Amino acid sequence: MISCREDVTKMILSAKVRKGIKWRDVTEATGLSKEWTTAACLGQMTLTKPQAEAVGKIFELSDEAIAWLQIVPYKGSLPTAVPTDPLIYRWYELVNVYGTTIKELIHEEFGDGIMSAIDFSMDIQRTEDPKGDRVNVVLSGKFLPYKSY
Amino acid sequence: MISCREDVTKMILSAKVRKGIKWRDVTEATGLSKEWTTAACLGQMTLTKPQAEAVGKIFELSDEAIAWLQIVPYKGSLPTAVPTDPLIYRWYELVNVYGTTIKELIHEEFGDGIMSAIDFSMDIQRTEDPKGDRVNVVLSGKFLPYKSY
Amino acid sequence: MISCREDVTKMILSAKVRKGIKWRDVTEATGLSKEWTTAACLGQMTLTKPQAEAVGKIFELSDEAIAWLQIVPYKGSLPTAVPTDPLIYRWYELVNVYGTTIKELIHEEFGDGIMSAIDFSMDIQRTEDPKGDRVNVVLSGKFLPYKSY
Amino acid sequence: MISCREDVTKMILSAKVRKGIKWRDVTEATGLSKEWTTAACLGQMTLTKPQAEAVGKIFELSDEAIAWLQIVPYKGSLPTAVPTDPLIYRWYELVNVYGTTIKELIHEEFGDGIMSAIDFSMDIQRTEDPKGDRVNVVLSGKFLPYKSY
Amino acid sequence: MISCREDVTKMILSAKVRKGIKWRDVTEATGLSKEWTTAACLGQMTLTKPQAEAVGKIFELSDEAIAWLQIVPYKGSLPTAVPTDPLIYRWYELVNVYGTTIKELIHEEFGDGIMSAIDFSMDIQRTEDPKGDRVNVVLSGKFLPYKSY
Amino acid sequence: MISCREDVTKMILSAKVRKGIKWRDVTEATGLSKEWTTAACLGQMTLTKPQAEAVGKIFELSDEAIAWLQIVPYKGSLPTAVPTDPLIYRWYELVNVYGTTIKELIHEEFGDGIMSAIDFSMDIQRTEDPKGDRVNVVLSGKFLPYKSY
Amino acid sequence: MISCREDVTKMILSAKVRKGIKWRDVTEATGLSKEWTTAACLGQMTLTKPQAEAVGKIFELSDEAIAWLQIVPYKGSLPTAVPTDPLIYRWYELVNVYGTTIKELIHEEFGDGIMSAIDFSMDIQRTEDPKGDRVNVVLSGKFLPYKSY
Amino acid sequence: MISCREDVTKMILSAKVRKGIKWRDVTEATGLSKEWTTAACLGQMTLTKPQAEAVGKIFELSDEAIAWLQIVPYKGSLPTAVPTDPLIYRWYELVNVYGTTIKELIHEEFGDGIMSAIDFSMDIQRTEDPKGDRVNVVLSGKFLPYKSY
Amino acid sequence: MISCREDVTKMILSAKVRKGIKWRDVTEATGLSKEWTTAACLGQMTLTKPQAEAVGKIFELSDEAIAWLQIVPYKGSLPTAVPTDPLIYRWYELVNVYGTTIKELIHEEFGDGIMSAIDFSMDIQRTEDPKGDRVNVVLSGKFLPYKSY
Amino acid sequence: MISCREDVTKMILSAKVRKGIKWRDVTEATGLSKEWTTAACLGQMTLTKPQAEAVGKIFELSDEAIAWLQIVPYKGSLPTAVPTDPLIYRWYELVNVYGTTIKELIHEEFGDGIMSAIDFSMDIQRTEDPKGDRVNVVLSGKFLPYKSY
Repeated sequence: MISCREDVTKMILSAKVRKGIKWRDVTEATGLSKEWTTAACLGQMTLTKPQAEAVGKIFELSDEAIAWLQIVPYKGSLPTAVPTDPLIYRWYELVNVYGTTIKELIHEEFGDGIMSAIDFSMDIQRTEDPKGDRVNVVLSGKFLPYKSY
Repeated sequence: MISCREDVTKMILSAKVRKGIKWRDVTEATGLSKEWTTAACLGQMTLTKPQAEAVGKIFELSDEAIAWLQIVPYKGSLPTAVPTDPLIYRWYELVNVYGTTIKELIHEEFGDGIMSAIDFSMDIQRTEDPKGDRVNVVLSGKFLPYKSY
Repeated sequence: MISCREDVTKMILSAKVRKGIKWRDVTEATGLSKEWTTAACLGQMTLTKPQAEAVGKIFELSDEAIAWLQIVPYKGSLPTAVPTDPLIYRWYELVNVYGTTIKELIHEEFGDGIMSAIDFSMDIQRTEDPKGDRVNVVLSGKFLPYKSY
Repeated sequence: MISCREDVTKMILSAKVRKGIKWRDVTEATGLSKEWTTAACLGQMTLTKPQAEAVGKIFELSDEAIAWLQIVPYKGSLPTAVPTDPLIYRWYELVNVYGTTIKELIHEEFGDGIMSAIDFSMDIQRTEDPKGDRVNVVLSGKFLPYKSY
Repeated sequence: MISCREDVTKMILSAKVRKGIKWRDVTEATGLSKEWTTAACLGQMTLTKPQAEAVGKIFELSDEAIAWLQIVPYKGSLPTAVPTDPLIYRWYELVNVYGTTIKELIHEEFGDGIMSAIDFSMDIQRTEDPKGDRVNVVLSGKFLPYKSY
Repeated sequence: MISCREDVTKMILSAKVRKGIKWRDVTEATGLSKEWTTAACLGQMTLTKPQAEAVGKIFELSDEAIAWLQIVPYKGSLPTAVPTDPLIYRWYELVNVYGTTIKELIHEEFGDGIMSAIDFSMDIQRTEDPKGDRVNVVLSGKFLPYKSY
Repeated sequence: MISCREDVTKMILSAKVRKGIKWRDVTEATGLSKEWTTAACLGQMTLTKPQAEAVGKIFELSDEAIAWLQIVPYKGSLPTAVPTDPLIYRWYELVNVYGTTIKELIHEEFGDGIMSAIDFSMDIQRTEDPKGDRVNVVLSGKFLPYKSY
Repeated sequence: MISCREDVTKMILSAKVRKGIKWRDVTEATGLSKEWTTAACLGQMTLTKPQAEAVGKIFELSDEAIAWLQIVPYKGSLPTAVPTDPLIYRWYELVNVYGTTIKELIHEEFGDGIMSAIDFSMDIQRTEDPKGDRVNVVLSGKFLPYKSY
Repeated sequence: MISCREDVTKMILSAKVRKGIKWRDVTEATGLSKEWTTAACLGQMTLTKPQAEAVGKIFELSDEAIAWLQIVPYKGSLPTAVPTDPLIYRWYELVNVYGTTIKELIHEEFGDGIMSAIDFSMDIQRTEDPKGDRVNVVLSGKFLPYKSY
Repeated sequence: MISCREDVTKMILSAKVRKGIKWRDVTEATGLSKEWTTAACLGQMTLTKPQAEAVGKIFELSDEAIAWLQIVPYKGSLPTAVPTDPLIYRWYELVNVYGTTIKELIHEEFGDGIMSAIDFSMDIQRTEDPKGDRVNVVLSGKFLPYKSY
């Protein structure tokens, strides 16, 4: 009995290691970005029926698991409020160190409002650099203004 | 008596509102990016003597305050581990929802290691869009590999 | 020296009690809803110059305080993550008890996405009822869909 | 052996996905609002015997599970004090940003007391809007005054 | 400048010690129970104008402070979620040890609902006992049923 | 293998629902108050051998489970420091709102010390009331004075 | 204006350093144990009038401060739930490492109940030891049994 | 498969109840104090091979479990930072109420340093007392001085 | 089904005790430092295929488990933010007591930046000492400077 | 009025920036290591009279402040349990990632016990390295064994 999306995420992660699947292989099957596809496999996004079936085929999931991939999950991928994993912590640190800076600069440019985390996309790329390759990330979020009413 | 950098940040914020200063004005004075300059004024980065004096002139700071701007601050700009401000929370949410995704994709591309939050730069830009302008952010961090020893 | 919006909120609250001002008086001055106006006075929204001046006149604020009302505040009005005040706690309880219900029903109707807390309005009304008057609240938030990319 | 209501909630959620049941189907069977019915299925409300049997029939529950649906549950549907799921977080954010505003306006209208979360109902509706459909929620709670004694 | 009820509570506590006032003296002035009167002086209840003036006279409060006593306070009298003071902790312990028992017995008697903490009164009395005097407390709260809708 | 009292509590709760047992039935078997008996069944008190056997007979427990009922349990019945269940939360709220009041009044009457939560009894009764029946609770705890040494 | 006992504790600590007072000097003035006397000066116990006056004389306290020493304080001397100071942490560690052991042994000897922290005394002594002097602490607390009712 | 010491602790506790073993019986087998022996059985200390075998014989443990008893455990016996069990809480309360007192008196006697929780022993005894028997606990820890370097 | 690295860590720890393996035996097999090798076995580092096979042979792991050893783990080895185990706590205490000192001295020597925890190595050695042997630890981390941009 | 060591730490930090003092200057005056001296100035260690006077002279402290430097402080230099400052966080991360590794290796070498954080010294040095200079830290702590009793 599968009773939450997390059960399916565990099946996917288990199959991924057991069968040596790469996220880029999954991306080819869905025809979507590697960021969105991976997030969906990790239980953060909702797949359409064809997407879920494509993912299910790769990871050899049961029909029940494939059905769960089409259900909106309870989101949030981290086990603690402050992440302990060093790679993810660095992102938390950016938010902590630069948080007020980001806030000030977006407000100076756009006024009061937020950068959407829903109407949003992310692109992670490797950039070669003689001093050590870099991770380049482009985040794009619609600005949503607060308005008086 | 000034006993921590936060006292100086408060002076800067107070003068900024009182005198109607924009961060872009400060950026011109330092000749550096708006992101780094703002972070420095908000108590997260360390200024050189000329930078501190330029900033001090704009915000009419005392010599003591200018000296503090050249001292490495205790970093972290948020009052709570999970930020309550909606704009900053959206960034925390990105880390929470996409955290494991970012981790998987960087590791698939680079192997074990992290994206540096120190050898790092950020660029925040407005992109016009007929469906609503977007905030575009480019993050660039050196990849630092874990190595066995 | 005013160094954060909270200082201005305290001035407003102090003047409100000292002078016996009602929120509805402030609402008349701004010409906006009582909900938005009150939230702005309590340090959660950003006022335009005329709005800030109208509010400043009512509460006899200094020019510096009026300038701060036009600055985007660091939002979040509660001192603890779980509110201790009984009236506000009941709202927290609603989110806790009905949170998954709200999530299920919005997703069943709209698919994956959120109800915006930015493109949002709230209207609080008294409804007379022989068994005891009721508080009626209408919340309206734009649905923002997650889309694959 | 079933030893808490949460076990039954998991059975319901599992059957719901496996059999493609919609909450509106369940609502028809109970003859009650979709909000209350869903909350009950998610382990937050107590069903009468006929309601429990109707629900049990839809989800093919055992007699033991149906008996549990008639037991008052330990309420609270969220795994963390501050919810990580973006949809539910937006509601937490509303309470955080507007909490003091709601408090002020209800007290200005009614005096000291609370808006009941028990003698309470909720109605969630879709409103079509050319700029993007909206979620409209009507909350109705009896005002309960504090009285001196 | 007084900007929150807590400032007035401090004035009352300071005057109480300085002038050797007893809560029972204050109770006589308000004509209400010692429990409600004390809670009001400690910033948890709202006084009417005559009550506030009577209290103000006893503690020699300013008009501004007396005005604050008539404003609904942000309630919650404890500095930490789990109280450190031994007397108050014992009450927290009772809720922790007997919490599920209280829940079971009230539900067995009344069905689903709560015992109101608003339509509520408390009476604390000393009972002489040869084995050591006892504190006897009578709590009375209206039962509020959850109803389906 | 039973390795903690909580395992036995789950067995009792499961049998209670499965067999439709009422706490008052258990009370008759033990000959003690319904409050103490229920607390014991919920894993907060220690039963004597005859009491444990009487309880074991009602819930059809194994000898091993009956042995565990005679072992002093690790007490505390709530899963979180601040309870999420509305009925239990109301009690937490009483401690939070009235905590300092209770402290002041007991100290004014008895001097420094505490109201015991060990040499303690509780009696929960329904009181009929035309405006809605009430839950009446009598708490009785021995006063234990701090003494200098 | 003194509004809480903590203000008086600060005065005592300040005078103690400024005037080079030892706790043993204070103990002589009160005629009580050094443990109780020190705890009282640190804001955890309530002094009688003569004791308060003796303490006040040593630390040159105002009459207002001396009055506060006779008021039951809000107890708890640590700024965080888990103490950061190494000496105090070792005690917390003892409770954490030996907590279940202490519980088992007291219950095996006495049955269900607690060791009182109110009817309690503590004696801290130095014991010479060639391998390094030792701190010897004797704790004595009355056993209080839980009884059924 | 046993993968942590906690699994063995559960086996011991289960066998203890099932077979009616007393800690004093175990103590006789190890020839050590009841405090250390009990702590070891509860997963806080490391046994030698003969001690582990003696303990294993009493509780009928497998060879694998006996091997685990000889492995240094991850110490800490409490499920929450602030213990909920009343007996253990009283000890936490002592640390909280008397923490700064203990610190002051040890420092006055010994200077800067700590009382060791490693080079440490504890002895818990019953003392008869006509007013109610007492728990007497002697703690002995080596004083470890901080030294400059 | 293995679904996270923690499952493999448990297998390793279980086999280690069952078969009496020492970390130094594992170190010989990998040819790397004992610190890195142990951290890898405890689920904190990523092994190459030959290293994973060598480790797998020692602990008799399945092919699936060996595959997991080559996957970058979610790092963080402690169950609570503040560790309860005395040995590990001492390290937390060092960071807490000496944290600002380390920060000041590194900044005085190097300017603003950090000591890397990624380009890092650790060496733990026993040093004989007549007053008691010592643990000597050498930590070496690359200094990474913050630079303006 | 100085009422805690933290007040003196603030005076020292303020004077340090105002007068451009380096920690190495202070070290020369005390004749002790830079690590211990800095920790003492930051409120973590206790100075002798001559050391306090030397430090007081450098920072132009009052006699009262110099007296406080000779009082054992309440230790702990970080404002939050998990440090937000990136440099200090890296050390917390080391404890988190390597914590169980350090524990295993010390126990394998020494048996059960701890590495003392009291009988302890630290030496921080710069090591030149063509790939980027390194911070080298040597920690030396006496091993303290747990012994049975």
